[in-house]
Amino acid sequence: MLTIILYNCGFQLTENQDVLNNPALLRVRLPSRRNLPALLDLSVVHGSLKDPLMRHSGRPDIVHRSLLTAMDSPFWKENTVRFLVHTINDEIWEINKEWKPPVSYFRFFWLMERFLYERRLDFGNVSMKLDDMSIIELINGLSDNDEKISVFLLSKAGTNTGLRQLVAEIGKSWDSNPVIIVGGYQRGHNILELEKQLLNCEIASWNVSNESLMASTVISMLFFGLKFLK
Amino acid sequence: MLTIILYNCGFQLTENQDVLNNPALLRVRLPSRRNLPALLDLSVVHGSLKDPLMRHSGRPDIVHRSLLTAMDSPFWKENTVRFLVHTINDEIWEINKEWKPPVSYFRFFWLMERFLYERRLDFGNVSMKLDDMSIIELINGLSDNDEKISVFLLSKAGTNTGLRQLVAEIGKSWDSNPVIIVGGYQRGHNILELEKQLLNCEIASWNVSNESLMASTVISMLFFGLKFLK
Repeated sequence: MLTIILYNCGFQLTENQDVLNNPALLRVRLPSRRNLPALLDLSVVHGSLKDPLMRHSGRPDIVHRSLLTAMDSPFWKENTVRFLVHTINDEIWEINKEWKPPVSYFRFFWLMERFLYERRLDFGNVSMKLDDMSIIELINGLSDNDEKISVFLLSKAGTNTGLRQLVAEIGKSWDSNPVIIVGGYQRGHNILELEKQLLNCEIASWNVSNESLMASTVISMLFFGLKFLK
Repeated sequence: MLTIILYNCGFQLTENQDVLNNPALLRVRLPSRRNLPALLDLSVVHGSLKDPLMRHSGRPDIVHRSLLTAMDSPFWKENTVRFLVHTINDEIWEINKEWKPPVSYFRFFWLMERFLYERRLDFGNVSMKLDDMSIIELINGLSDNDEKISVFLLSKAGTNTGLRQLVAEIGKSWDSNPVIIVGGYQRGHNILELEKQLLNCEIASWNVSNESLMASTVISMLFFGLKFLK
């Protein structure tokens, strides 16, 4: 089974008072939640952020677009893929394949504000939760025997090049449950730092384009490659 | 040059009073525009729509996701592609390649409400306008000589099958400026009706998947096919 991890997503709540009182944010939030922490979305509250570090976060739209792109892809529909969202606060959200994320960003925003606060989502038979876990703990937990798992970091600065070649390498490690890590952030992070941190894996970095691409574009290229270029 | 048309998009303003007074819509709109027609987004105002026909429209998110997907794709960046949005009100919006659409749906919503009202958008050197034009007038205007242009309708109900085969056919007609038409609606329309309406073209319908796919997924499959399967 293939595992995709969307890494270091700026997917978090904030209690920053400047942000909470931002008029644009007050407009888009549900009134019933106004006294609770808010989902940080830079596109709404950019002017209220004085801490430059916060400007490297607050991109729930990347999570939304990546989920919709992945879950609508023919490869996803024909295969069993495990999709995990890792946040900059070291939380892990495993997507339930039975869940249909709202296509509307408004509805996604409202739902995710509740999810990050309650740390669980329940719809009929679908139940998902948010767990405190670093990416290292997550990867170590994915291997259920002594075999080293193969991890593929996708980055513009990756050492290995080419979508066809990447797909061939993923194919070779298919039986040992390969893990693909895609950056879920806007900027200010470096996915290649994981090469030094993930010690018990066969790890390699791959560049599928010399352009900076959206996470959703990288995922759709990967899924397209796995379906058509194998 | 390749032309892509996103066909029959539910991308329109409304003056329906039930919609304008919908509390969720009042929240998300810019206060300065409250007395003006609103961008119809079903995900926000679904409960206020009594006319069942209106439920077949109001999907600006499809336009947004399709634009972002197309314009972030490596194929788009490496080629000259003409992208046109056709609305259910028979309006045409030609995308300027120099324009960067807002990645944030909130910002896109606010901007498009203004664009559809003023019927033009100006950012520095980028200028775009909304023209009244049917898809038939549009297609007839694309051919600048007597040669019949090749039109490819992408639909789950298409007669011809397979992404590789589609890409090969598009390749054959590359020099005569092929036109690809992708449905930009949710449901309630049938792209194949164009086969009877577009009489002066070489027209063929193509199915690239047996699943119903989002317009953005179809566009990303098409662009990856044109880049990797040619």
